[in-house]
Amino acid sequence: MTNQIFSRFTTQHKVRPDDIDMFNHVHSSKYLDYVLAARYEQMDVNYGMAMEDFLKMGYGWVVKTAKVNFKRPLTLSDFFLVTTGLTEIHKYGCRILFEITNPKTNKTSADGYFEFVMICLKTGKAEALTPPIIEKYSI
Amino acid sequence: MTNQIFSRFTTQHKVRPDDIDMFNHVHSSKYLDYVLAARYEQMDVNYGMAMEDFLKMGYGWVVKTAKVNFKRPLTLSDFFLVTTGLTEIHKYGCRILFEITNPKTNKTSADGYFEFVMICLKTGKAEALTPPIIEKYSI
Amino acid sequence: MTNQIFSRFTTQHKVRPDDIDMFNHVHSSKYLDYVLAARYEQMDVNYGMAMEDFLKMGYGWVVKTAKVNFKRPLTLSDFFLVTTGLTEIHKYGCRILFEITNPKTNKTSADGYFEFVMICLKTGKAEALTPPIIEKYSI
Amino acid sequence: MTNQIFSRFTTQHKVRPDDIDMFNHVHSSKYLDYVLAARYEQMDVNYGMAMEDFLKMGYGWVVKTAKVNFKRPLTLSDFFLVTTGLTEIHKYGCRILFEITNPKTNKTSADGYFEFVMICLKTGKAEALTPPIIEKYSI
Repeated sequence: MTNQIFSRFTTQHKVRPDDIDMFNHVHSSKYLDYVLAARYEQMDVNYGMAMEDFLKMGYGWVVKTAKVNFKRPLTLSDFFLVTTGLTEIHKYGCRILFEITNPKTNKTSADGYFEFVMICLKTGKAEALTPPIIEKYSI
Repeated sequence: MTNQIFSRFTTQHKVRPDDIDMFNHVHSSKYLDYVLAARYEQMDVNYGMAMEDFLKMGYGWVVKTAKVNFKRPLTLSDFFLVTTGLTEIHKYGCRILFEITNPKTNKTSADGYFEFVMICLKTGKAEALTPPIIEKYSI
Repeated sequence: MTNQIFSRFTTQHKVRPDDIDMFNHVHSSKYLDYVLAARYEQMDVNYGMAMEDFLKMGYGWVVKTAKVNFKRPLTLSDFFLVTTGLTEIHKYGCRILFEITNPKTNKTSADGYFEFVMICLKTGKAEALTPPIIEKYSI
Repeated sequence: MTNQIFSRFTTQHKVRPDDIDMFNHVHSSKYLDYVLAARYEQMDVNYGMAMEDFLKMGYGWVVKTAKVNFKRPLTLSDFFLVTTGLTEIHKYGCRILFEITNPKTNKTSADGYFEFVMICLKTGKAEALTPPIIEKYSI
């Protein structure tokens, strides 16, 4: 495990109408999809190694653990900012902290963390991160 | 195109809480997913050639056209019946009629049709149905 | 029914990872959600009467019919343009044409139409469009 | 907080095709929806006070915290069992433990917990559980 301080990156997205549930706010499980969407964008734009690059190398990334604290609901047409950053790089994956904020109020909508594991697409099993991957992601 | 009369099959499912939208009924696009779920079950149980069998043979099925008439909304916890049946088998696919009914009222919730095309998973292109497939699905 | 020529508006969005299905392209029912998301934005930005304004007046909009022609699949991380325009305004609703194009290729990904009906949120029944609504939407 | 031992209940559901993602297994955020669907059923069948009963009383339930450990992926057409049980009843809500198992292998697919808070639908704020609610749910 590296003990480095890692960078944080922020992406802005917008709530889609199909994300709204019977309580007229964003459905709880959609926050996980929001983090994923932001992360995929940041892998491409900020780390320079997109999910598509991993797929071409025969790798995928799957969620091992997710913890989400729901603080203030997002609602129809809201924009939101997703800030994520690595906190640990392990042999087979990494831990990512996230915070979703509402730019209208500057308050936290949700926060938490994800543990991701890199897998080999052929076997479906965990695969050790290679040095080039670790280098690209240790910023 | 065969001109045969084909069988119809009915599957019962239940609305999930995450299917409900801001108008407190099932979100419009979920009806397409309901037809798909019923169809996959019927491919397995009624035709004896499941989607998994197609995948193993290197084939997939994609939607070419969908027409849905929304008649009476389904709501939280509703059970619903999905009846589907082939109306045509083409060289590369088939047309399926569907009707979703609410067993509580026996009234139509939605109906319409789907045009499906079989694809080769490697090329992503349309693939001609083989005689064994046509035979299995011409019931 | 008015016989006027109506304006068309275009909105750009991006595929989210949770939109991708087992065939590694955008899941068929998500295209309906894409049209809805674009339309909600255009109601706000281009017509000046957002869905939120309708909700405050006690009205909602539901889909009566949807027809979608799937032409070229969108895939992970694709941007897409959704162009929509009214073709008819009825007593209780309207018909909207849409086209989703991929800006990378300038080719059509999907097209079709939606029939929408305005409902009273209290009764859930169709409600006649008021003159101010017709005026705002007859551009 | 009560210190009682609470009952556990199990519900069986089936993976829908629209739950499958680009890695050919159930998309991570869908497991939260699976727990929710099971819980709604158990509220009705096992506790005798369904979500619809809460809605009629002017109450809703929202997720405050979710923790999910993803252990073995579910795939297309899999059946799964969702076992849930209360571990604590608080003034404004409760904590629920869950385990999703695959009946084919009898192994855990995912487990974790949810913290739920009861809200007043009018204000959107947390509302203290009433004695009849506590009684119904203290089994």
